[in-house]
Amino acid sequence: MFPPLALLVGSGADQLALQMLLVFGAAKLLAELATRAGMPGIVGGLLSGILLGPSLLNLIRYNDLLHALSELGVMFLLFQVGLEVKVSELLRVGKTALLVAISGVAVPFAMGYAIYIGAKHPQPEALFMGAAMVATSVGITAQVLSSKGLLEHRTAKIILGAAIIDDVLGLLVLAVVSSMGEGRGIDYTGLLTTTVVSVVFVAAIVKYGTGAVRIVVPRLARGMRLHESEYAIAVTFLFGMALLASVSGVAAIIGAFLAGMALAEIASKRLHTLVQGAGELMIPFFLASIGLQLDLHALASGSSLAMAIAILIAALNSKALGCGLAAWRLGWKDAARIGIGMAPRGEIGMVIAQIGMSRGAIGQEAYGVAVFMAVMTTVVAPPLLDLAYKDIAQPPRGLPPDEEPVQLG
Amino acid sequence: MFPPLALLVGSGADQLALQMLLVFGAAKLLAELATRAGMPGIVGGLLSGILLGPSLLNLIRYNDLLHALSELGVMFLLFQVGLEVKVSELLRVGKTALLVAISGVAVPFAMGYAIYIGAKHPQPEALFMGAAMVATSVGITAQVLSSKGLLEHRTAKIILGAAIIDDVLGLLVLAVVSSMGEGRGIDYTGLLTTTVVSVVFVAAIVKYGTGAVRIVVPRLARGMRLHESEYAIAVTFLFGMALLASVSGVAAIIGAFLAGMALAEIASKRLHTLVQGAGELMIPFFLASIGLQLDLHALASGSSLAMAIAILIAALNSKALGCGLAAWRLGWKDAARIGIGMAPRGEIGMVIAQIGMSRGAIGQEAYGVAVFMAVMTTVVAPPLLDLAYKDIAQPPRGLPPDEEPVQLG
Repeated sequence: MFPPLALLVGSGADQLALQMLLVFGAAKLLAELATRAGMPGIVGGLLSGILLGPSLLNLIRYNDLLHALSELGVMFLLFQVGLEVKVSELLRVGKTALLVAISGVAVPFAMGYAIYIGAKHPQPEALFMGAAMVATSVGITAQVLSSKGLLEHRTAKIILGAAIIDDVLGLLVLAVVSSMGEGRGIDYTGLLTTTVVSVVFVAAIVKYGTGAVRIVVPRLARGMRLHESEYAIAVTFLFGMALLASVSGVAAIIGAFLAGMALAEIASKRLHTLVQGAGELMIPFFLASIGLQLDLHALASGSSLAMAIAILIAALNSKALGCGLAAWRLGWKDAARIGIGMAPRGEIGMVIAQIGMSRGAIGQEAYGVAVFMAVMTTVVAPPLLDLAYKDIAQPPRGLPPDEEPVQLG
Repeated sequence: MFPPLALLVGSGADQLALQMLLVFGAAKLLAELATRAGMPGIVGGLLSGILLGPSLLNLIRYNDLLHALSELGVMFLLFQVGLEVKVSELLRVGKTALLVAISGVAVPFAMGYAIYIGAKHPQPEALFMGAAMVATSVGITAQVLSSKGLLEHRTAKIILGAAIIDDVLGLLVLAVVSSMGEGRGIDYTGLLTTTVVSVVFVAAIVKYGTGAVRIVVPRLARGMRLHESEYAIAVTFLFGMALLASVSGVAAIIGAFLAGMALAEIASKRLHTLVQGAGELMIPFFLASIGLQLDLHALASGSSLAMAIAILIAALNSKALGCGLAAWRLGWKDAARIGIGMAPRGEIGMVIAQIGMSRGAIGQEAYGVAVFMAVMTTVVAPPLLDLAYKDIAQPPRGLPPDEEPVQLG
């Protein structure tokens, strides 16, 4: 029989369609099932990766394309969240966010380091495990709060602000850990430069972004003859800021969030919907990619499974403790909400574990433990958040009647 | 100095952001300039690829990621167009479309073959050049007509219908050419199987798709608790149909178009906008990818440039002649519109040239000529279409006041 064109062509159009169908379809199907089981839909998206990946069905291998779609997905997720957040409101909680971030970095790092040193692992491994536990993957929490219409809540603002500061702190921890792990002295000049560049970048965008955007974007959009010019400008701005953030040493998604926030006050309803159209397509790839990177077989031995569970429990408790204590004066309920909201380590924790492995600082087993911790903190956070915010499940704030609240996932 | 996190990470978040920014930004900027120069915006998107690619600035190399985004872009483009087209209207022009497709395959093939044989090139090369000239990249024309609100025009229906049939015919031509080029006999059983499978697939979707979708989709969407369930279903359906089409031997984009068309009668306004949000993001990558594959340096010698221009002129005239004559009874104006609308060879022509090269049937020079022909037929078509439809630039048909017509690109 004659082979079908697509195979003959080798262009991979069929493979592309197959991957898109499997990941998108499974993520949405499991999201629906999760919703019916009374859980946030996002849990289904996360589980779909575990289901399709090496841990269970082994249908799909995490690859460059899925990685790129996942990165785009989380960029759009944070961009969408940014569009819902006003800079002034974020600044108002600045001091609490700073405290939460610092304490939420110190406690998990110390706990991870202590457990690994206590179990007689080599110091570089303990350092990297601590660093992996520092990371916060804010996308998951932002998504849950956004879908509940709770981005206006002060705890949401604190979590978002703390996550940005956390990213800068995580960068420094990683730098220090890398130097120490390789037995080099700490490069204080380099550290200072990194800190200054990343802080100046974030501060400049937070301080001047909205103002500059308010002056430039509407004029530009009006002056352009291209159809959907506002969307074209917004997406260009999004990628530009993601790039600038990367170059300044901050995560690309922080750039995406800052871009969204700078646009928040002038974004039209149509822009929201168009951005949502792109986000709804790609966010499932972000969610699935987290689970796709988990291979439970790596934890087959009893001792590594026990260690993975110990690290998971430490990861959850250390963030809850670190962040919760720093936010204690808001009352125990809000403190708990913040502690849970900062728990997911997601893709950030995995990236740090990958760096550790690529430098030979951590072995295959510790890598497996770190990935397990990153994935499971991410999977358990949404249902816990659901519970923590149950008593303030407020209806979305007053939107025009035909505007729907941003619902990610 | 300490390297920035993204470089340290090697996750390529910065490279991803850079590529997205360059391609998307350049495509939109040139689209704006094209619009101001009185040309369709799509021309700017196409030129951006030539500008960024090896022909001029050499800033970006066409790679797997851009290829995947480009495939997704053209899938969404055809899906969007499908959403605007009713099956019944397409069937009404079926016979004319069939004539246009057959004649539009025969004349270009004969001309390409004759020129190459006349210039004393080997027969396999002449066969593949003919096959590359047969292809129709319908996305470009569909995009121009959609942006002018002219998808309702009978010529638009004929072009879309003919492009689908053209895809099946092109598949057969490629099969025959491949056998002959390799000196094998023609596998008539294989040919028949391919024909039957692809025709049955298309016919089944055209005949039963809308009906099935009308029964299943609204119930499914109502029954689901997931937010934006209609979009989730539509996108899953899109990828499923693209995959089925690929497997049946038809291009994935034909599947995407059929999926859109099956949904056309029940798609909500919100679904249109969400799909547009995804499409607006990815279509620029499709447009740019065409130009990115062109390397004018391949035509540096005088004789290959002369051949490229000869083939380009033949490609334009042969489609105009073949399709125009078949549609002559509609009057010379509509015949000319159809002849121009079928001209772009785009990505389809390039894929066939790639197959020819990978099989050793055509050399580097003939490949360069075919790519030049594919790109230039695609670049010149939109301005010519603009002219051809100037006197019927009708306003978009009666839409609800706040609904904007689908404007691609």
